[in-house]
Amino acid sequence: MRQTFDIRGGPVIGRTNLPRLRRVMAGQGLDGVFIPHDDEYKNEYLPDANERLAWATGFTGSAGAAFIFADRAVVFTDSRYTLQAADQLDADLFETVSMPDPGPFGWLAGETLDGKSIGFDPRLLSPNDVTALAAAAEKAGAHVQSMDTNPVDEAWPDRPEQPMAQVVPHPVELAGEDSASKRERLGAALAQEDCDAAIITAPASLAWLFNIRGGDVFCTPLPLGRAILRADGSAELFLAEAKVTDTLRAHLGNGVAVRSPDELEDGLAGLKGKSVSLDPEVASAWFFRTLEAAGAEIHHAPDPCALPRACKNRTEIAGSQNAHRRDGVALTRFLHWLDTEAQSGSVTEIEAVEKLESLRAAGGDLRDISFETISGAGPNGAIVHYRVSTATNRKLECGSLFLVDSGGQYEDGTTDVTRTVAIGEPTDEMSRHYTLVLKGHIGLARVRFPAGTTGTHLDILARQALWQAGLDYGHGTGHGVGVYLGVHEGPQRIAQPWNATALAPGMIVSNEPGYYKTGAYGIRIENLQYVTAAETVAGGEIPMLGFDVLTLAPLARRLICPDMLTRAETEWVDAYHARVLEEIGPQLSAETGSWLEKACAPLR
Amino acid sequence: MRQTFDIRGGPVIGRTNLPRLRRVMAGQGLDGVFIPHDDEYKNEYLPDANERLAWATGFTGSAGAAFIFADRAVVFTDSRYTLQAADQLDADLFETVSMPDPGPFGWLAGETLDGKSIGFDPRLLSPNDVTALAAAAEKAGAHVQSMDTNPVDEAWPDRPEQPMAQVVPHPVELAGEDSASKRERLGAALAQEDCDAAIITAPASLAWLFNIRGGDVFCTPLPLGRAILRADGSAELFLAEAKVTDTLRAHLGNGVAVRSPDELEDGLAGLKGKSVSLDPEVASAWFFRTLEAAGAEIHHAPDPCALPRACKNRTEIAGSQNAHRRDGVALTRFLHWLDTEAQSGSVTEIEAVEKLESLRAAGGDLRDISFETISGAGPNGAIVHYRVSTATNRKLECGSLFLVDSGGQYEDGTTDVTRTVAIGEPTDEMSRHYTLVLKGHIGLARVRFPAGTTGTHLDILARQALWQAGLDYGHGTGHGVGVYLGVHEGPQRIAQPWNATALAPGMIVSNEPGYYKTGAYGIRIENLQYVTAAETVAGGEIPMLGFDVLTLAPLARRLICPDMLTRAETEWVDAYHARVLEEIGPQLSAETGSWLEKACAPLR
Repeated sequence: MRQTFDIRGGPVIGRTNLPRLRRVMAGQGLDGVFIPHDDEYKNEYLPDANERLAWATGFTGSAGAAFIFADRAVVFTDSRYTLQAADQLDADLFETVSMPDPGPFGWLAGETLDGKSIGFDPRLLSPNDVTALAAAAEKAGAHVQSMDTNPVDEAWPDRPEQPMAQVVPHPVELAGEDSASKRERLGAALAQEDCDAAIITAPASLAWLFNIRGGDVFCTPLPLGRAILRADGSAELFLAEAKVTDTLRAHLGNGVAVRSPDELEDGLAGLKGKSVSLDPEVASAWFFRTLEAAGAEIHHAPDPCALPRACKNRTEIAGSQNAHRRDGVALTRFLHWLDTEAQSGSVTEIEAVEKLESLRAAGGDLRDISFETISGAGPNGAIVHYRVSTATNRKLECGSLFLVDSGGQYEDGTTDVTRTVAIGEPTDEMSRHYTLVLKGHIGLARVRFPAGTTGTHLDILARQALWQAGLDYGHGTGHGVGVYLGVHEGPQRIAQPWNATALAPGMIVSNEPGYYKTGAYGIRIENLQYVTAAETVAGGEIPMLGFDVLTLAPLARRLICPDMLTRAETEWVDAYHARVLEEIGPQLSAETGSWLEKACAPLR
Repeated sequence: MRQTFDIRGGPVIGRTNLPRLRRVMAGQGLDGVFIPHDDEYKNEYLPDANERLAWATGFTGSAGAAFIFADRAVVFTDSRYTLQAADQLDADLFETVSMPDPGPFGWLAGETLDGKSIGFDPRLLSPNDVTALAAAAEKAGAHVQSMDTNPVDEAWPDRPEQPMAQVVPHPVELAGEDSASKRERLGAALAQEDCDAAIITAPASLAWLFNIRGGDVFCTPLPLGRAILRADGSAELFLAEAKVTDTLRAHLGNGVAVRSPDELEDGLAGLKGKSVSLDPEVASAWFFRTLEAAGAEIHHAPDPCALPRACKNRTEIAGSQNAHRRDGVALTRFLHWLDTEAQSGSVTEIEAVEKLESLRAAGGDLRDISFETISGAGPNGAIVHYRVSTATNRKLECGSLFLVDSGGQYEDGTTDVTRTVAIGEPTDEMSRHYTLVLKGHIGLARVRFPAGTTGTHLDILARQALWQAGLDYGHGTGHGVGVYLGVHEGPQRIAQPWNATALAPGMIVSNEPGYYKTGAYGIRIENLQYVTAAETVAGGEIPMLGFDVLTLAPLARRLICPDMLTRAETEWVDAYHARVLEEIGPQLSAETGSWLEKACAPLR
């Protein structure tokens, strides 16, 4: 089992560590310190050694920040984590303030902190964050101080080591393009922009650019490291010695010099007088300062790997299709189990997670889960970012809905799928809500759109049926997904806030509308789909793009109200189910196969 | 008749006036001059005296610009006006370059103009435009020079006088809120932002804020003038003496000092040391320079009238409903005429315009048309911004489509409506295309959406049926509309480019998807609709907004393919037609009434 169900964080941690941190702060002459959740690499998952916010406070949410002073400690959390923060933070030691508004900088600006010195770690903050922090401190009468040593790291007695997983080649048979070719075309684009080099600070970009994978963080095969890519296509790759093997060196070839992370500052200093591309959304203030100090000319531009990584080539799409077929078999076996044994009402959320992971692992190709399975029975399904632990574990009771959002990492692809199933007899209301969510899912699956369309334009297709019924969901509709990389990946996104990235062929996105009835149940239907040229239709004048579905597993036929679907929607469901049956059916046992046949029968 | 059908512009004008302009430029020591289409007031319609681009070049498009040098003249136009520009510009004298890309500043930056001096009129350019112009000139090795006197105005021998239409009170019975109340709440909002005053530079804002209307430009009852609004709600209104009557003074009251436009510079100088709100999207560089020179502190903020003007109050909505009912009677009589007499195939586009205007005028309440009627028969219907003239006038031939986009200005509201009708027997393709456009129109009419939704989110609803068929249209879907004010009004808009203004109750927008088959026919279906609280539905959890239709005139029943509509779409058409019949029917003659009854019969 990869997933654990332990109770993380909690008030004891903050009670223990806060005094330790304050002693170190006092020693460093700091009145306060700012602790963001993000680490040096800005990944979704942090290595244990970088869980600084959790260590200092006991709060383990995936977003947050804190200001620690000698006499006060303030933790910033968003609405998803209100209950969790109350549970994990000792209220005698920590105040909690809303993360979006006023947020840490807005809050700081309103305080009176005359003459106080507030430390920050430039490796953990973007240059814009540093500017905002300094301006807020000034309003409060305080000043900020860039710290060479993070006081959390110094105060942490048993701090885990940085992860040192071996980095392995990602074969070109799966990547579809070798690293030299990628580096050459990105280098040529840099030259076009009159740049001599780009700094690659994101591990996912490292993985894509060099066709390598690592194992430094949970759920994502990332190699933690950095690189300098030159306009001529050559590169320096900064990776800890312990992660590098001869096989890797041979794979990287002569165009890539492997250097120790200790040499990174030297490497940046070598860019004196050069024009260097750096992404202010991804790179920390430390990179900007170091390059400025070195006398390089910084060119603000997006990470040059981000867009080419998002537009998967044919090989990557084919790999993803294989991974999804494999994943679909496991998921279908799981759904069969849910529809039979788990109908007893005695199975728990944790047992469901264990069952699903074991079915995925049984295929033999699972490298990791792509995130911790969200296994939400009844009211727990309505908690959008629910993580089941031994403390919250519920039974899948008769007459309830069960929401399961999960995914796997395979060498050829990354999956992410949500299904909602009825345990026992669903109410009419449950079915009506399920069908409204399904209508939105279909709307976004079958859209055709011209080049230039962005996810912001499409988002409403997944919501309009709910809106007609006076309902909505409080999260985005779709995120980008990598190929044996991050399960959340930009730059494209399907959501209401403006995203200027046009959806382009090869981009994989999730399609996951939902509905959540607080205290009762949650519904979400999620498939992954990728952008591709749409079939031309007679009389069409403009080439259109569309989506091809990757995820293959039956929907909850029992929860669909056929009367609420238009003819086109019904046709979509029937065609999708026919495809699931055709691609997954032959790989199942006779018993599961005959269950799938019924699950995929036409709606009318 | 208000509309004229004369042939405007043309190569003779450029041939005559270009040498005149060049003589004046030489006298002023200018090597080049930049001429935008916009005038001092940035309205859609310009008084004749301000049609500087048309005077200098002969090009009369509603968007464009020119650089005139001693030996070259370059006119920038967009794709809508490619044909018109070729027709109106003497190719021996003028080069044409695309307006969006590279545009005037992009073009200038690529030229070599060492040491040349390029004049610009700071009254006609935004501060951002001046910055971009200066940067582009520098790249070309040239420099810019702010001109006190516009060389076009000096070179123009018979330049018309500035319009001097009397300004009249707009009664509170129609405005719904008196000017003192508007000024007080806007002044209080200024004080909240620590501003002492705001400069109101847009005539439409003047009209709304002071409850006044003028007659200085075609199709829009605008008073050309400026104002300073103070945080205490008092104001200075700069209006030419000739426009001001005792009635107007009495209406304005003690809180408003009426001053001559010659005193504007003095008025701005009086703001020395004050914090002054000014909109860089609306106010010209001249205002910024004058205030800076006066020692005022400029606060960049949107025109404070723009958003409150867009959110119509109940009285304004009621007035608009009345205006639309009146307009609907005229339009229905026109559609009856088109469906009977005009089926002969011998009626011309100009005769149709004359017929429609006379029917609108027959009601007795028409103050003006709200724009020049687009009367497009057959292939002319596919020209999105078509203006019929004696040179282009076509017959409404049998077997063709006729597109008519028109509107009226009434004291209680402004209308804008497009109908497309079949002359003779339509082809199956015409009906299929009409029905696809109708599906988009219905999608945007019946949407329900939560607060915070913008027009960019909704745009796709009007396009998706066309997209499914491989078709699209090359214009926005909806624009804001005023109440006895501009037929195009911001800040809200329904279109693909990002617009951050959330749709709010009382906003009037057009809903006008289309389809254009070049060389064959154009289809557009346009109603005005306003944002209002949607009816709650059983089980709804979130208050939703929706649209109420203002426009009342039958759709082209003969062009609708009922098989292509969903049940919900069919119900919408039938309900809309029932409402048209109920509200318009009783006001018609027996003959037209019985025609309307058939035109509004249920689809199945």
